[in-house]
Amino acid sequence: MRATVMFGAGDVRIEAIADARIIEPTDALVVVSRACICGSDLWPYKVMEHSDTGRPMGHEAIGIVESVGADVRTIKVGDLVVMPFAYSDGTCVFCSEGLHTSCIHGGFFGTGEVGGAQAEALRVPLADGTLFVLPVGKDDVLMPSLLTLSDVMGTGHHAAIAAKVGPGKTVAIVGDGAVGLCGVIAARRLGAEQIIILGRHPDRTALAKDFGATDVVSERGDEGIQRVRELTDGLGVHSVLECVGLEQSMLTAISIARPGGAVGRVGVPQNETMTGSEAAFYNNITVSGGPAPVRAYIAELLPDILEGRIEPGRVFDRVVRLDEVPDGYRAMNDREAIKVMVEP
Amino acid sequence: MRATVMFGAGDVRIEAIADARIIEPTDALVVVSRACICGSDLWPYKVMEHSDTGRPMGHEAIGIVESVGADVRTIKVGDLVVMPFAYSDGTCVFCSEGLHTSCIHGGFFGTGEVGGAQAEALRVPLADGTLFVLPVGKDDVLMPSLLTLSDVMGTGHHAAIAAKVGPGKTVAIVGDGAVGLCGVIAARRLGAEQIIILGRHPDRTALAKDFGATDVVSERGDEGIQRVRELTDGLGVHSVLECVGLEQSMLTAISIARPGGAVGRVGVPQNETMTGSEAAFYNNITVSGGPAPVRAYIAELLPDILEGRIEPGRVFDRVVRLDEVPDGYRAMNDREAIKVMVEP
Repeated sequence: MRATVMFGAGDVRIEAIADARIIEPTDALVVVSRACICGSDLWPYKVMEHSDTGRPMGHEAIGIVESVGADVRTIKVGDLVVMPFAYSDGTCVFCSEGLHTSCIHGGFFGTGEVGGAQAEALRVPLADGTLFVLPVGKDDVLMPSLLTLSDVMGTGHHAAIAAKVGPGKTVAIVGDGAVGLCGVIAARRLGAEQIIILGRHPDRTALAKDFGATDVVSERGDEGIQRVRELTDGLGVHSVLECVGLEQSMLTAISIARPGGAVGRVGVPQNETMTGSEAAFYNNITVSGGPAPVRAYIAELLPDILEGRIEPGRVFDRVVRLDEVPDGYRAMNDREAIKVMVEP
Repeated sequence: MRATVMFGAGDVRIEAIADARIIEPTDALVVVSRACICGSDLWPYKVMEHSDTGRPMGHEAIGIVESVGADVRTIKVGDLVVMPFAYSDGTCVFCSEGLHTSCIHGGFFGTGEVGGAQAEALRVPLADGTLFVLPVGKDDVLMPSLLTLSDVMGTGHHAAIAAKVGPGKTVAIVGDGAVGLCGVIAARRLGAEQIIILGRHPDRTALAKDFGATDVVSERGDEGIQRVRELTDGLGVHSVLECVGLEQSMLTAISIARPGGAVGRVGVPQNETMTGSEAAFYNNITVSGGPAPVRAYIAELLPDILEGRIEPGRVFDRVVRLDEVPDGYRAMNDREAIKVMVEP
């Protein structure tokens, strides 16, 4: 079968690899209907060292179950399923607490241990715990929005939860990528009163306003911080969604939170140390977040998509076939596209 | 009057200074009945550069109100009051939210702008918002425990709140100083099931066990982390109270928290960057805390002291007169004393 493999920075290829197949009795084999390129895929795209074997890419998908292992109980052949970016058993102590990304038996797609989703098909471990059956057909018009349940919508929601967004709160979102935009949706959905997006791309901030952002701050660094303070009576915001992961974006996030506020970070951190530790301390700012347990959020977010109350699928502004995936990476990296959907 | 002034590392003197007096109409003048030396006073004691003018020391006190400014409404001459380590108006947006240490008009004692509490008397700004009238006499046997409401008991409680301690939770306390020991009291009071104290001083860990600690871990670094994991089925603890403030103690705190857990930090951070940022992220560990709004906690903690349910005053294991304060610093710095009470 054909699948996306990254061999190094800027070197993404569509390769013929061994067909995905059931290995464990708890596996399901899923034929991919839709996949995506993720903002987090751009980190290795920028810096990965050359590898002869390469790394299978993609961790977001909707697909049709083609076969299941002997121990799979709830997932059936023919089901249309959404696949979270992490697999999880759904029963361990952490899954029971809703933190599926720390599942004791779980792991992540597109990491080498299991295949990637930017492919024709994919082996999904722990199928019963991982997959969520969708109550629609595979050509449903809601497909793009449903696809965001595999990562970006759930991740934006997680950032909002970690940042303690609630009714009447003031919120800022650092980063205008697909996750930041879904963070705007999440903040609005949770009742935020003021939603400030920090971003410099007019197409993205325009979409953010469609999603419910009340203010756009395009200035960076100290100027951006100053602007957010002006918009919030000099206090800063209750909740910051950090959707980038760089040292500077984290420092900005801490600097625009008001005393007693919270930063929910979902941007994959690119540094082992966090600056702003003293500022966070002296202002009693909570820093929370991490890999989003999107599996836990699907049941909550799905009705809003099915009933049209939220439209996170609008973050997709380009659709590619599998052999166009390398150009999809280039387009996202060049900021030509917000988020690329793959139709293998 | 006589007051404690620090002129540099290891150089604490009792000086004759101008009498404390009312300056603003919202001030109260308090004659100090009891004060303390704080673990945080030991940071400048270790590293402060020489200063010709020096820095007034002390931020914890119980005292008698000797006079009040024209605008003071609720505090009366003769009241026995406990003084939180920060002054606050009690009415601003942050005080209203219970974060008195971020009071818009507030500040900290022993910082130069106002005097220190290791003195015969003290000017207390914003007296109505800052002081809390105690319903006992000044020679009450509960005096030591009531004195901890000015800092360490409220700070331990804040760490526990920030670390989300609750019924049935597993808790670890990093640091066996007075704040860590009060953290044990707070964790027990909030219903924690397992309370592990990390500390190496037998007298302190013995007191921790009296206060409700279920386990003592005296190993440091990786060994200590390993030991906490063994005590918690390999998972780590729900809540960590970080009561030291060093890079290593913070890293230990993050390393012993279980996925989805929380670190409540109250140890004054000695570094601008925080290590362990990636570990905290990948395990969805919340880092929270800061200067404790102890003013907000007095009303909640006071009944437990008055009715004998908690005895935080046991952290005081030495009492000195004002002229013995320099030796009190030495004793705490040499770990001869856990916490020193001052009776001017």
